[in-house]
Amino acid sequence: MRKVDVLIAGGGDSGLAVFRVVKTLRPDWEVAIVKPEKGFTFKCPLRYYISGEIGESNVLHDDEHMFHGATLIYAKLVGGDPKGKIAELDNGEKIRYEKLVLATGSKPHIPNIPGVDLKGVHALRYFPSAKAIAEEAKQASSVVVVGAGYIATDLADCFKKMGLEVSLVVRSRVLRTSIDSEFSTMVEEQLTQHGVKVVKGSPVKILGADRAEGVLLDSGAEVKGDFIVFATGIRPVVEPAANLGAAIGSKGVIVDDRLETTLRDVYAVGEVAEVRHMITGEPMTVGTAAAAMAQGDVAGFNICGFNIKYPGGLSCLVSRIFDLYVGAAGLTEDQARAAGFKPVVEKVEYLDHYTVYPGGRKYWARMIYDSASGRLLGAQFTGYGNVADKVEAAVLAIRFGATMADLVTHYSAAFPAATFNPRFNQFREPAKKVFSEKAK
Amino acid sequence: MRKVDVLIAGGGDSGLAVFRVVKTLRPDWEVAIVKPEKGFTFKCPLRYYISGEIGESNVLHDDEHMFHGATLIYAKLVGGDPKGKIAELDNGEKIRYEKLVLATGSKPHIPNIPGVDLKGVHALRYFPSAKAIAEEAKQASSVVVVGAGYIATDLADCFKKMGLEVSLVVRSRVLRTSIDSEFSTMVEEQLTQHGVKVVKGSPVKILGADRAEGVLLDSGAEVKGDFIVFATGIRPVVEPAANLGAAIGSKGVIVDDRLETTLRDVYAVGEVAEVRHMITGEPMTVGTAAAAMAQGDVAGFNICGFNIKYPGGLSCLVSRIFDLYVGAAGLTEDQARAAGFKPVVEKVEYLDHYTVYPGGRKYWARMIYDSASGRLLGAQFTGYGNVADKVEAAVLAIRFGATMADLVTHYSAAFPAATFNPRFNQFREPAKKVFSEKAK
Repeated sequence: MRKVDVLIAGGGDSGLAVFRVVKTLRPDWEVAIVKPEKGFTFKCPLRYYISGEIGESNVLHDDEHMFHGATLIYAKLVGGDPKGKIAELDNGEKIRYEKLVLATGSKPHIPNIPGVDLKGVHALRYFPSAKAIAEEAKQASSVVVVGAGYIATDLADCFKKMGLEVSLVVRSRVLRTSIDSEFSTMVEEQLTQHGVKVVKGSPVKILGADRAEGVLLDSGAEVKGDFIVFATGIRPVVEPAANLGAAIGSKGVIVDDRLETTLRDVYAVGEVAEVRHMITGEPMTVGTAAAAMAQGDVAGFNICGFNIKYPGGLSCLVSRIFDLYVGAAGLTEDQARAAGFKPVVEKVEYLDHYTVYPGGRKYWARMIYDSASGRLLGAQFTGYGNVADKVEAAVLAIRFGATMADLVTHYSAAFPAATFNPRFNQFREPAKKVFSEKAK
Repeated sequence: MRKVDVLIAGGGDSGLAVFRVVKTLRPDWEVAIVKPEKGFTFKCPLRYYISGEIGESNVLHDDEHMFHGATLIYAKLVGGDPKGKIAELDNGEKIRYEKLVLATGSKPHIPNIPGVDLKGVHALRYFPSAKAIAEEAKQASSVVVVGAGYIATDLADCFKKMGLEVSLVVRSRVLRTSIDSEFSTMVEEQLTQHGVKVVKGSPVKILGADRAEGVLLDSGAEVKGDFIVFATGIRPVVEPAANLGAAIGSKGVIVDDRLETTLRDVYAVGEVAEVRHMITGEPMTVGTAAAAMAQGDVAGFNICGFNIKYPGGLSCLVSRIFDLYVGAAGLTEDQARAAGFKPVVEKVEYLDHYTVYPGGRKYWARMIYDSASGRLLGAQFTGYGNVADKVEAAVLAIRFGATMADLVTHYSAAFPAATFNPRFNQFREPAKKVFSEKAK
């Protein structure tokens, strides 16, 4: 029986992160990666591959390069005996491990409606799906994108820039899980202004006989398109963990704050790991590459004998839809209310330089506080320039439990050509307004 | 005798901030502002006034507008009787106050060398000095700027863009109190590439008979220029506080963490307030508008009966020198060592988008940790795009005591067109490197 120090089931971002930490700290350890298919897909930039802006070599990499120093096994983990520390693969092989990492990722979720098996129905996941979508897009003149998340809006932007007619089918409003309705409206206006047809409704059927020709919505409306892309979420692949006997929660594989599952020496990272929300403590999974990498790092350090605690999950977003950047961290106002907080929200409008001279790019921030504890629960940004660092600052403020009283005393640096007037600092000003209002 | 609820001595950024908080929370209170001269100067943008890019009305504002609802008294506070709560002005007037705010600001510090009283020797402070410098610049073809701080580098940039020959006289290296030598060199190269002559040395004499014609340095070198601008620091105006009997420290007027002086109901804010460094606890003053505003807010809330604690001072910088943005928060490596830490530094180079497609703006970050506690002590950024939000994120991380172990678990959001690859997050990656190195 093959024996390894660390067995990583899954070769995505989180598995790679675990591998790299372990190889750095314990270069002598034998690490095996079990992955179903050859090739490592960089998922975030796939839309640029679809549009032809970057080539295959930019998004698809050799496993030997990415996992240099690992033993690569092309198979799937199906279960095993965690007491005996034995993993079992779908090719029948059994492997003895010291530490096992479940990084089995997720599958796209496509609603189970008539016609979803027709040709021309796609979901974006790894490279092969991107290649299929790219080939469709080259021959098509129109597309229906179904979904309201950042992958759906990003694909709408992508297809429109490729010259296609784009219909975006959205159940309620775009980016609903990241931003509140005021900013959703702003994003929808941006999409509409750039020629994307935003259609409200839920698909109940794929139209077409031989191949997809559009979708029929619950409203009765038909939305036509030469092909369909579903970007309607993902579902974690928890079966291997369940077969092993790890506890599965409502969202994924249950882990503690070291990212260890209920089985000793078995860790779960990435889209399968059910972590606790940093603010609410509710179970959640985080589906982004950034989160996968951070979780992989945490598990990697802990596997090597450290005791690093994962601070909990937090939803974050950075995107650009045509000219409008959008970003968010933490709870939306709706989510805060649903979680039992009494959110109080302050919106500010500002520029990327002082107001004393004309021009400049406009930004808007919505800061969401808990009126009881004063804690910053969430921050949302839109603007005509990059908001990524604003999101990062908000993440850090939320992570460390910043309250209105903290932020009233907050200051950074000011420079007329590079910051807004510091009197209206995007963190201090809203905190002050809410705080003053409460104080009266 | 005139009686007021709040008497604010000083009409700059910090005094204004106190006033506005008090007027918002306690609209019925009578607030008087004692200030020496008419007009409120927006100091940060003065260089754009000097260069003619913005007009007088953008930098000089009516007191009646800025301090709407206040009683304006044009005089200077000279002392008083804090037990009887009586302030005395230089016009002989005595005013009874409930709360007194010392926001008396500072004066430019010009080295006491022969010739500093000659015509053509300037220091930038309030509007009149900016006007005088603007008039000189219009008629001159060359200028000597003395100083190494961000006002000096900003003026060098300003004068060069106006077409003047610019010599910048620097004792050791530019921005020494904000950034370490590697980034200083980058800024000096940027200045040199754009035609600014960076000269090392200390002025020992102003050259010229009727009016200044240059400076003589300790090296013996002569640096010629049609006029001279000193940007060699400021000194707080502590005399009124001292006359009142408030304790004066090595840097300014001693305050507690509510920004109250050693005299009851007497607060000090802005450049005169000797606060404690957020990390080292050492006494310091903070001379920026952003800090003045935050301190003014803290004192304002506390005057109104709150108990808001100032978290301590932190040096921050955001600037742009020609094409290069520079920013910093917290201790430099040199300062960290001087404060008794064992700093460990990690430098990273990154782009404002994923590396999968070409182009993009380059950035560099230097992250400074304490190797004992792991705490983030400082962060420095340079780059060919705005670094202001990066500085703000660093301020929040430092403020809340982020350690390497915290930052190893940190993640934000990623988007190929708006962030660097999240595997190399500017906070997590350096923390990981240092942490891994220590762990081996």
